[in-house]
Amino acid sequence: MIKESVINELIEKGKVARIAARKLAFTPTTIKNKALANIAKSIIDRQGEILSANTKDLDYAKSSGIDKSMLDRIMLSPSRLEAISAGVRKIIALPDPIGEMYDLHLAENGLQIGRKRVPLGVIGAIYESRPNVTIDISALCLKSGNAVILRSGKESINSSVLLAHIAQDACDQSGLPVGAIQIIESTDHALVNHMLKMRDMIDLMIPRGGASLIKLVRENAAMPVIAGGIGVCHTYVDKDADLDKAVAIIRNAKTQRPSVCNALDCILIHENVIKTYLPVIAAKLAKDKVELHCDEISMDILKPIASLNLVKAVEEDWGKEYLSLKASIKVVTSLDGALEHIEKYGSGHSEAIISENYSTAMRFINEVDAASVYANASTRFTDGEVFGLGAEIGISTQKFHARGPMGLREVTSYKWIIFGDGQIRG
Amino acid sequence: MIKESVINELIEKGKVARIAARKLAFTPTTIKNKALANIAKSIIDRQGEILSANTKDLDYAKSSGIDKSMLDRIMLSPSRLEAISAGVRKIIALPDPIGEMYDLHLAENGLQIGRKRVPLGVIGAIYESRPNVTIDISALCLKSGNAVILRSGKESINSSVLLAHIAQDACDQSGLPVGAIQIIESTDHALVNHMLKMRDMIDLMIPRGGASLIKLVRENAAMPVIAGGIGVCHTYVDKDADLDKAVAIIRNAKTQRPSVCNALDCILIHENVIKTYLPVIAAKLAKDKVELHCDEISMDILKPIASLNLVKAVEEDWGKEYLSLKASIKVVTSLDGALEHIEKYGSGHSEAIISENYSTAMRFINEVDAASVYANASTRFTDGEVFGLGAEIGISTQKFHARGPMGLREVTSYKWIIFGDGQIRG
Repeated sequence: MIKESVINELIEKGKVARIAARKLAFTPTTIKNKALANIAKSIIDRQGEILSANTKDLDYAKSSGIDKSMLDRIMLSPSRLEAISAGVRKIIALPDPIGEMYDLHLAENGLQIGRKRVPLGVIGAIYESRPNVTIDISALCLKSGNAVILRSGKESINSSVLLAHIAQDACDQSGLPVGAIQIIESTDHALVNHMLKMRDMIDLMIPRGGASLIKLVRENAAMPVIAGGIGVCHTYVDKDADLDKAVAIIRNAKTQRPSVCNALDCILIHENVIKTYLPVIAAKLAKDKVELHCDEISMDILKPIASLNLVKAVEEDWGKEYLSLKASIKVVTSLDGALEHIEKYGSGHSEAIISENYSTAMRFINEVDAASVYANASTRFTDGEVFGLGAEIGISTQKFHARGPMGLREVTSYKWIIFGDGQIRG
Repeated sequence: MIKESVINELIEKGKVARIAARKLAFTPTTIKNKALANIAKSIIDRQGEILSANTKDLDYAKSSGIDKSMLDRIMLSPSRLEAISAGVRKIIALPDPIGEMYDLHLAENGLQIGRKRVPLGVIGAIYESRPNVTIDISALCLKSGNAVILRSGKESINSSVLLAHIAQDACDQSGLPVGAIQIIESTDHALVNHMLKMRDMIDLMIPRGGASLIKLVRENAAMPVIAGGIGVCHTYVDKDADLDKAVAIIRNAKTQRPSVCNALDCILIHENVIKTYLPVIAAKLAKDKVELHCDEISMDILKPIASLNLVKAVEEDWGKEYLSLKASIKVVTSLDGALEHIEKYGSGHSEAIISENYSTAMRFINEVDAASVYANASTRFTDGEVFGLGAEIGISTQKFHARGPMGLREVTSYKWIIFGDGQIRG
């Protein structure tokens, strides 16, 4: 049973955030940038405190027998803090999206009608073990004029709470409203469900973490959610593919950073080239220690080759996000077969075709329904910075509001502004 | 207890719509326009059938003692059918939003990265008694490449079902996919709740009707909702207002069409001009038979004047959408007082200031948080056509995805498209 005082504290934070958001919406860029500069500086100035809070988290994690990769995600170091600080300074350099007027046009009756970009209001962020998310999200929300309520995973609660307080202190010194950046200090799990119901106080919820967190938020949030981060990514090797490009792109997409959402999960390959191309691709992946989950036809082709790490694919392999050095292989008889497979098993994140045939490549680009669709390039490029957004608050696999990498502009709304001179409607 | 066969039929419609949506996404503009032309023609060609289905609805409505304004909403006539048909022809003339590529830029590594506009997929529309909504929504969805599942109120079910079938027949003749336009024929109320849970089959839900329908959909839909249509609209008469503009604009906003969402509900007036301006404004509104719900100060000013229709305002008058010839009056001591009142009681629809003072007007434009904010013009202008969108699928009072009047572009999404030449990530 959750304590009433904890729920009241949460509601109080929501009210304070609402008031802060109203003020933040008109805060000049110079003040927001000053606050960001203060945050960047404080992270370095107060690194002793931060690292000792982080030690508490690490000690607790070790004592509860958490695995190595999780420990790595929790861990902060002087160089990691420098990287977090540098990330904040980069956001200072980005243009402020708020206040821009656009689509202005003069109506026949003399009305000047257009749109003006405004913040969404209050953003809720629920994340897991990485304490750097505290600062990343806070800085992006602040620059885009949104107040933020953070909820960190318990594994990094000491680090995250301190980082959030440091960020709020920096805001206070810069004349930003109280409550621009707030964090929930209780780690009571039941609190998340209360937070997800606060539709009147939180305008958008951003979950950052594994599939179960995202599912929980999607299914229970009363406010809009930007969910994403789950990437079941295919690369289709067409019969008209260039072999060198196919090898380089597949290798890059699978092995350059296998633990991320835009890494390759499934190779689709046209039957015309399975005898010529597939052994070359498989051999290259074997050098990188990739385990291949093969359908029947590809297994028949690859089985005779020594030194490959082959597994017979089962139904669960299709549509699986491996996040490790594993990939499935499926043979298709046509572009349509590839499109159907992607439609059935893809997660709408990043999909690629390798083909020198113009019409085939264009059909793939046009017909695949995913946030990012590539011709002859690695799916690893799906990223806010690469796509020219300057920074990334998340990757949406939804179609509503924002799709794919989300930058500052993607956490804004607009209002219609109308400049008149006494006009009335006839 | 709802019949299982009815639920199965609904699910079947959802599946068919999903398949139709995939095809509609790549249907060329010429085919979509041909289907729209067929719809426009069929409505005229088959008006005998339509009017006799409408007579059934009217007979049923009369026998159940429905009020006059409701009967008027249900009623079709040759001239109304001509207007519906003309509306469809107008949508033919609008540019197709789908397929447009934009924001393309060349990355340093030679990747061409940009966005391409795509449909949302399947749109659900739940509406009340106006059968014309069947065709309006269907035509807008078709042009924007979205499949639609319609759910009409039972008062106009015969008219709506026939109109939807006529639209689908017209689509069939034009080579559009089966299931582009579908309507739920059962009027079982419980079916709405099933429809609202079909997140996998319906990408966006648009409720069109009164406050209780919108509340039901907002609170129960598992998919995104574009809710709107509730307008509690204020016009603030500043101390620096031009009296002639104030009188003309307030009169227009209140009386030109009082039953719509962008009509005026509350006059806020600066205390400096209550003795000079308020009697003039009130006298003009009295001529139009407007009932004025006055706060204490304005009552003291207006009471001595004969021929006014005054009522003492109660707390419920603030934040009330009258939809009739009634308006509330509240005296404020400053622009800030007006802003606070609007923040507390406004519904985020349309708000206006009357002022000749540049800084006051600009502060109002910048600080009011509503879908449409006016300086020196009537709130009655909030409309997709007036705002240059060509047509209107609804007015959103949300900040997420689309705000204010929504045209064709506002029921689309985008995908990122990346043209490469073998690029891999370093």
